[in-house]
Amino acid sequence: MANETLIRFGILGCAEVARKVSRAITMAPNATLYAVGSRSLEKAKAFASANNFPPNAKVYSSYEEVLEDPDVDAVYVPLPTSLHKKWAVLAAQKKKHILLEKPVGLNVAEFDAIIEACESNGVQIMDGTMWMHHPRTATMKEFISDADRFGQLKSVHTISSFTGDDDFLKNDIRVKPGLDGLGALGDTGWYCTRGILWAANYELPKTVIALPGAVLNEAGVILSCGSSLQWVDGKVATFQCSFLSNLTMDITAIGTKGTLHVNDFIIPFQEKEAHFSSASKSWFNDLVTGWEPTPSKQIVVSDLPQEAQMVREFSRLVGEIKKGSKPEMKWPTISRKTQLVLDAVKASIENGFQPVEL
Amino acid sequence: MANETLIRFGILGCAEVARKVSRAITMAPNATLYAVGSRSLEKAKAFASANNFPPNAKVYSSYEEVLEDPDVDAVYVPLPTSLHKKWAVLAAQKKKHILLEKPVGLNVAEFDAIIEACESNGVQIMDGTMWMHHPRTATMKEFISDADRFGQLKSVHTISSFTGDDDFLKNDIRVKPGLDGLGALGDTGWYCTRGILWAANYELPKTVIALPGAVLNEAGVILSCGSSLQWVDGKVATFQCSFLSNLTMDITAIGTKGTLHVNDFIIPFQEKEAHFSSASKSWFNDLVTGWEPTPSKQIVVSDLPQEAQMVREFSRLVGEIKKGSKPEMKWPTISRKTQLVLDAVKASIENGFQPVEL
Repeated sequence: MANETLIRFGILGCAEVARKVSRAITMAPNATLYAVGSRSLEKAKAFASANNFPPNAKVYSSYEEVLEDPDVDAVYVPLPTSLHKKWAVLAAQKKKHILLEKPVGLNVAEFDAIIEACESNGVQIMDGTMWMHHPRTATMKEFISDADRFGQLKSVHTISSFTGDDDFLKNDIRVKPGLDGLGALGDTGWYCTRGILWAANYELPKTVIALPGAVLNEAGVILSCGSSLQWVDGKVATFQCSFLSNLTMDITAIGTKGTLHVNDFIIPFQEKEAHFSSASKSWFNDLVTGWEPTPSKQIVVSDLPQEAQMVREFSRLVGEIKKGSKPEMKWPTISRKTQLVLDAVKASIENGFQPVEL
Repeated sequence: MANETLIRFGILGCAEVARKVSRAITMAPNATLYAVGSRSLEKAKAFASANNFPPNAKVYSSYEEVLEDPDVDAVYVPLPTSLHKKWAVLAAQKKKHILLEKPVGLNVAEFDAIIEACESNGVQIMDGTMWMHHPRTATMKEFISDADRFGQLKSVHTISSFTGDDDFLKNDIRVKPGLDGLGALGDTGWYCTRGILWAANYELPKTVIALPGAVLNEAGVILSCGSSLQWVDGKVATFQCSFLSNLTMDITAIGTKGTLHVNDFIIPFQEKEAHFSSASKSWFNDLVTGWEPTPSKQIVVSDLPQEAQMVREFSRLVGEIKKGSKPEMKWPTISRKTQLVLDAVKASIENGFQPVEL
């Protein structure tokens, strides 16, 4: 691929996760690290040098300068959620394509403003949900879409949690109402919700209810919560997201004929290969002392880490737009649906765990 | 072991599950098949001959005759739930120890009548929840009780489902209001509830709520439902039980420091060895592209199938009572708590999914 077709990324801020995405940009064959901006020039310089930016990369002491640089094609925005609307809208106005960290906004109204800016300016937006791009995800989707092996989806349960230490629970931006105000719901709950919508072919539930037992910190930020979702066709789902429980990331999807289990759906245990368990038409032996057949372990090898697959797909879409295509609306559409469910869970917590209709 | 110390079992009825338990009685070193009673003498004879009853075993054409036989030490009661109260109370009055299938009653008041009869007559009662007796269960319990490896229990999710075929959904006793009136809640939901209580050290939740989306048949019997449970200390649990989804049996228990996953907790995939997954202090590598450490697979070998372990433990307790000990109250106590939670879930479904305080 000729160098001039590489999509040139500018990074807004030096968040921890930007290290991983910088590496992904260097790994993706159609992308390159081009600029980084931070309110501290020193931090930006240190970030660029620690993360293999090319020698000619631009290092700026503000986010604005990144957006003003005409050679930046796309920006990666890992800023606190409360800053997403401002910076994503500005980026779109500057015709920068946007890879935006999750949750995409503090609420769906914020994200709608972002979508509108992207649409008016013809730029691509995609959220940073990396596991969507792992080849395992497509293989799992094939399984749960198979009418013979899996049947009709009946229920989904997802979990995303990790144990925040004292420092995290006191100081992390994800527990601060002014920064990432959705707390565990916006962070780990984003993945739970996306996992459920993914399994449900992005059909929105009819009703969402938060489960009693949500834990909020003194500032009112969610540290742990659960939810139950119902669809018109009778499907149901539950999820549990938390900053207070050991690192766990499960999707369990059950159909009339099959069961999917994956225990590392957000970040695979290992980078090079990932597995999941599929069971089909499970039943017992004659005396009900064992299963026939037993579930199978499926292994999916990945040539690129999922975050590099994400950057590659995003950059491919940007490249197509440069050649005259329209932005791919699938990505903002599923971002918006995910945010909509998060909003409903939050509303249900606030209204005393009453159902919220979507 | 001298033959005279073997506990002599009488079986009430020829239910499918009685085949498995008959085999278990022949395998347990301290138990023997002694009698079977059915309303049809032909059925009883066929059952005895198909299930390796000894040549001198008694074959009766009524349940009463089994209870009247002075040489019967204990009865196994796999009758429909609606008959449990009558026959378990009668058995206790005849001084027979009782291995009672689950759910133990249509409601906790019925089981209280059974407990009272057992207490007044000094007989042991144990429910037929086989997985409690698998050595894997004890090994998993060690893990989730370990303050260092697992920490404090924060959440549990259990699933028990199978896909009933058209014949099952039309004709099985478990979908008939007059027979097993609790439907999927009493059958597969019993295991879900027991799994949760087991993980919570049998501490009852403070509040139980049924999840919207329960499916009932035309006669009002539950075919599928879910529940959310909350404890005073902040622990939470959810479960999903169903006759409409592929065979699945999961416990996921998450503590502050560890995670337990088991996907065949009720009936292990294989009889001779069973496994589970334990994760402790799970975290990421530096770039958050993999887990360190990854979860471990634990394998537990079983010298006897779990149902034979159950019969052995029950018979051991009966043997101790014959030598002067008191009945072991642990078993009816956990049966009663399990039933109490089922009753609460049913009450919540009936009151429009409102919380029920225990």
